[in-house]
Amino acid sequence: MIATRAQRLADRSEIGVSLAEECAIAISYDGTTQAVLMATPADLEDFAYGFSVTEGIARPDEIEAVQPVRVDLGVDLRIWLRRDAGQRFIGRRRRMVGPVGCGLCGVDTLTAAMRELAPVEGDCTVTPADLDLALAQMDKAQQLRDATGASHAAGFLLPGRGLIALREDVGRHNALDKLSGALLRGEDARLIGQGAVVLTSRISVDLVQKAATLGAPVLIALAAPTSAAVAAAEAAGIGLAGRARSADRAEIYAHPERFS
Amino acid sequence: MIATRAQRLADRSEIGVSLAEECAIAISYDGTTQAVLMATPADLEDFAYGFSVTEGIARPDEIEAVQPVRVDLGVDLRIWLRRDAGQRFIGRRRRMVGPVGCGLCGVDTLTAAMRELAPVEGDCTVTPADLDLALAQMDKAQQLRDATGASHAAGFLLPGRGLIALREDVGRHNALDKLSGALLRGEDARLIGQGAVVLTSRISVDLVQKAATLGAPVLIALAAPTSAAVAAAEAAGIGLAGRARSADRAEIYAHPERFS
Repeated sequence: MIATRAQRLADRSEIGVSLAEECAIAISYDGTTQAVLMATPADLEDFAYGFSVTEGIARPDEIEAVQPVRVDLGVDLRIWLRRDAGQRFIGRRRRMVGPVGCGLCGVDTLTAAMRELAPVEGDCTVTPADLDLALAQMDKAQQLRDATGASHAAGFLLPGRGLIALREDVGRHNALDKLSGALLRGEDARLIGQGAVVLTSRISVDLVQKAATLGAPVLIALAAPTSAAVAAAEAAGIGLAGRARSADRAEIYAHPERFS
Repeated sequence: MIATRAQRLADRSEIGVSLAEECAIAISYDGTTQAVLMATPADLEDFAYGFSVTEGIARPDEIEAVQPVRVDLGVDLRIWLRRDAGQRFIGRRRRMVGPVGCGLCGVDTLTAAMRELAPVEGDCTVTPADLDLALAQMDKAQQLRDATGASHAAGFLLPGRGLIALREDVGRHNALDKLSGALLRGEDARLIGQGAVVLTSRISVDLVQKAATLGAPVLIALAAPTSAAVAAAEAAGIGLAGRARSADRAEIYAHPERFS
């Protein structure tokens, strides 16, 4: 967070404010840049692992090392892959024909944008009480949002246990990637198939794709999903709920059997 | 909007809901794909013009034709450039070395991510009354949000006249691009330098870059800006206000002389 001064529009009084830090992060594999994203420069190891997994580039055990290097214009996030993954990455890059846009990193065709998702194997049943507990825990844990008002959060709810991890970022995709990395690197990695990702944002299709690739069987968000997000969740076997500012108001859009 | 059914989590009652349509849109220039983005497939001509201008690819008068083509997996948004712009585009593509990530379309280095902005020439002074009027008008005009809860909006406020244009999209960058295109193609294009872009979202640096490239001297958002957004607005001469759910609560982060 960066402390600075602002003025109230109403009376021009000066106030102290905190800004969420946002900087350009170049993600490279074995020395080749894969993506440049704007993100909060925190939890960068988590980000490296999460991005690699949710974008289908490498499994955690295929990552040899992660080196975040601060440079003048941002962060050079260097990821080094073990041999097989490195060769797969080079092969994948050769098939690419050009650069791509927002929300879909490292894919550049309509086919790739609508990537087929393997069904999520995990098992998880979320109750309204689980959800309300996790929402209350998330609300308390969002320090970056409280200070800056410019961030989203992704949390992981384990039924019966509550929130077991949370990450914040100025970007909602990054928050999910950082959460994914935190889970994959921690001792609760084996529980990913038994819990739910909870997002403070809207649900677009790329977030469902990331959750599916992570292996999370349930995805819940405070705002609503898009049509493509619902279709992707349906296809991937993901229980999808939105408008979940409280369990009372939450609506289920796909795989209601994942909720009870 | 797509009508479908959902279940309430609380009591499992079935309800009718509307989903915001989200589909993959491939943006191509002269037959070469530049970006694939997830967006709401509406106002696609506006999107083509706005994206071209705010990403610095072509001026409106350099665009010869726009052809949105519905295909199985989404929309092929074909843009044809006049000769000089087409050659510039090819030259720019040759300098690119790879694909890029979220929020920064068609640039792939940290340098490009932090592109230098020419100072905005326009002149505009927004009063609290202007802002409150525009916010009320925007609140009424967001039909997609009212129906789906999954979209953002970008509006254009002309001091003394109120809101003169508004576009919605599942992505906040797309909403701004569509607004930009709508303004550039309409009879109010010459007024862009005299008004303010108002966003329902957070303000990340890429939104400031787009507003600056459009030539809008003021950017206001309902949520807060990031550190990089404030720095970019400062450098580009853009009056930047955030947390603007009402004029009473709005805070000015850059160029307070743009407000009165």
